[in-house]
Amino acid sequence: PKRKLNIHPTPNNQSMNELRKDYLTDKWVIIASVRAKRPHDFKTPKEENNAANCFFCPGKEYTTPPEIYRVEKDSKWIIRVIPNKFPAVIPYGVSEIKTDNSFYTYASAYGRHEIVIETNEHGREIEDLPVDHIKKILRTFIFRIDELMKDPLIDYVSVFKNKGKSAGASIAHTHSQIIAYNNIPSAIKNELESSYRYYVLNKKCAFCDIISKEKNSHRRVLKTKHTIAFTPYASRFPFEIWLFPKRHVAGIGELNEDELLDFSASLKKILTKLKEIGNVPYNILFHSMTDKSANFHFHIEILPRLTVWAGFELETGTIINPVSPEDAAKFYRNEM
Amino acid sequence: PKRKLNIHPTPNNQSMNELRKDYLTDKWVIIASVRAKRPHDFKTPKEENNAANCFFCPGKEYTTPPEIYRVEKDSKWIIRVIPNKFPAVIPYGVSEIKTDNSFYTYASAYGRHEIVIETNEHGREIEDLPVDHIKKILRTFIFRIDELMKDPLIDYVSVFKNKGKSAGASIAHTHSQIIAYNNIPSAIKNELESSYRYYVLNKKCAFCDIISKEKNSHRRVLKTKHTIAFTPYASRFPFEIWLFPKRHVAGIGELNEDELLDFSASLKKILTKLKEIGNVPYNILFHSMTDKSANFHFHIEILPRLTVWAGFELETGTIINPVSPEDAAKFYRNEM
Repeated sequence: PKRKLNIHPTPNNQSMNELRKDYLTDKWVIIASVRAKRPHDFKTPKEENNAANCFFCPGKEYTTPPEIYRVEKDSKWIIRVIPNKFPAVIPYGVSEIKTDNSFYTYASAYGRHEIVIETNEHGREIEDLPVDHIKKILRTFIFRIDELMKDPLIDYVSVFKNKGKSAGASIAHTHSQIIAYNNIPSAIKNELESSYRYYVLNKKCAFCDIISKEKNSHRRVLKTKHTIAFTPYASRFPFEIWLFPKRHVAGIGELNEDELLDFSASLKKILTKLKEIGNVPYNILFHSMTDKSANFHFHIEILPRLTVWAGFELETGTIINPVSPEDAAKFYRNEM
Repeated sequence: PKRKLNIHPTPNNQSMNELRKDYLTDKWVIIASVRAKRPHDFKTPKEENNAANCFFCPGKEYTTPPEIYRVEKDSKWIIRVIPNKFPAVIPYGVSEIKTDNSFYTYASAYGRHEIVIETNEHGREIEDLPVDHIKKILRTFIFRIDELMKDPLIDYVSVFKNKGKSAGASIAHTHSQIIAYNNIPSAIKNELESSYRYYVLNKKCAFCDIISKEKNSHRRVLKTKHTIAFTPYASRFPFEIWLFPKRHVAGIGELNEDELLDFSASLKKILTKLKEIGNVPYNILFHSMTDKSANFHFHIEILPRLTVWAGFELETGTIINPVSPEDAAKFYRNEM
């Protein structure tokens, strides 16, 4: 009968791969210790980063679409928000989603696609900037999210960063992107539904409970006055790490000045450490709600793009990760 | 009130991007015609492909783990199945899935990970092989799926091909992979649940109905005696294409000799055409069930890996695709 004889001792102390599920959602990974790699195995060659033809540098403002917003210092811009020249969504068309003949569900890809140029200094990365400057970048995101959500046709504002070609960046000058559009993304919907189910059963925020478990686990990385960082149990990427504010807030906009400054300092610490591996391409995802009553806990996910998702990942949704989060946490804690 | 004023005429006949949902599941894409590219924009540099140090070539059999199966011609192997030297899953450990403390769901990554070396001729790709040889490869998959499913601890057998580095291939000699493991993947579960819901409502196979719509749509590509190919409405990748047998079968193992030969010929035609773009990296996914009564219709998905999923895709699950499936179908139909 199925599921009876299920213990097969491993020969020769061969290390085991482990199948793991995300804390809340139905996302699975295989932590492939059998293929385990050390941090230095992931050293990535430095990418070309020439300031000469950079559209995002001071003096080239005329090459970009008209500016939306800027932060100044000594009457020069230090952060600049512009529309994306090749937008994924535009504020025209029919935003309402319709279904024809059972199978064809569509709408115009309605919304706004913006670029946040994070510094006027070409070649500096987030981790090279002063903590106070990073805080100003986060404030810029908060301001833009608020503005964009004023359009009643916008359902969700996605804030993310692509660094390096393998992470989808086509321009090297450090920047983030904002896509506000007419759909609640299925990945976010799944996360919200799962945390809602947890709330109904436990009358507590799922993420608050995860934090209280992980802050003392083998995956703990960082504890500051207002933040907690850990490598998630079902990490999809080598050295994946999540950063949370301790206080329960659904969105980044609810953080106060102290919390935002501390959050910026923690982000800087994490990215500085990550840089030790080499020129790591990564994405930063902002999981943030604007509805304060949402069953959600704001956090960011930092995803180093050191592996390629192949046929198995695309077919099954199960992601093979050659670095266990426990090893990744040791790296971040300077224990390896 | 929300959703009222939702028609915003596009200025200057600017082409529109479209938000689209998959036929059945909650997977969304943005077809970004604004960023549209022509086939030749995707030309990919040829990768190094040196036979000298190839572990998969004849004469190097001693470098691989012990052979599992072979197909011979003139007493030489022409197809060879071997265990993966760096397996994602191994047939040891505790296969049963458990949950500790609400959040930690895990099992050993139990199963078998095999490589199918598709020809003894280094440098030849699937599309270079005779149709009858391709059929023998498919027969090999069928044989291995049947064998692997005999282990009661195996829940699903994933068959897939990675071609090119951007598609996750580390060895150039043409091969596919088989991962049999102790979980029904969430992506497959979603597909099965959606097609089951459709069946309950309509008493018909969802995929049979999709085929009957798409065979005459702008996305049609190929009709043969036993097969249909089209570019899916919510294509995630440029030039993504799906190939179905016309007859309703849940798994590849149910196809008869004629159907399998015709299916092989159609696969060869599609890959031959795709090659015109250049050295396209791609994955082939086999969506195939072993339970004949499953609400499913066997098909393969060919996914050219010509774009990188960036922060937006990873955060939202919404995939930006710069080539519309209607344009991709024109390419396959030799109309562009």
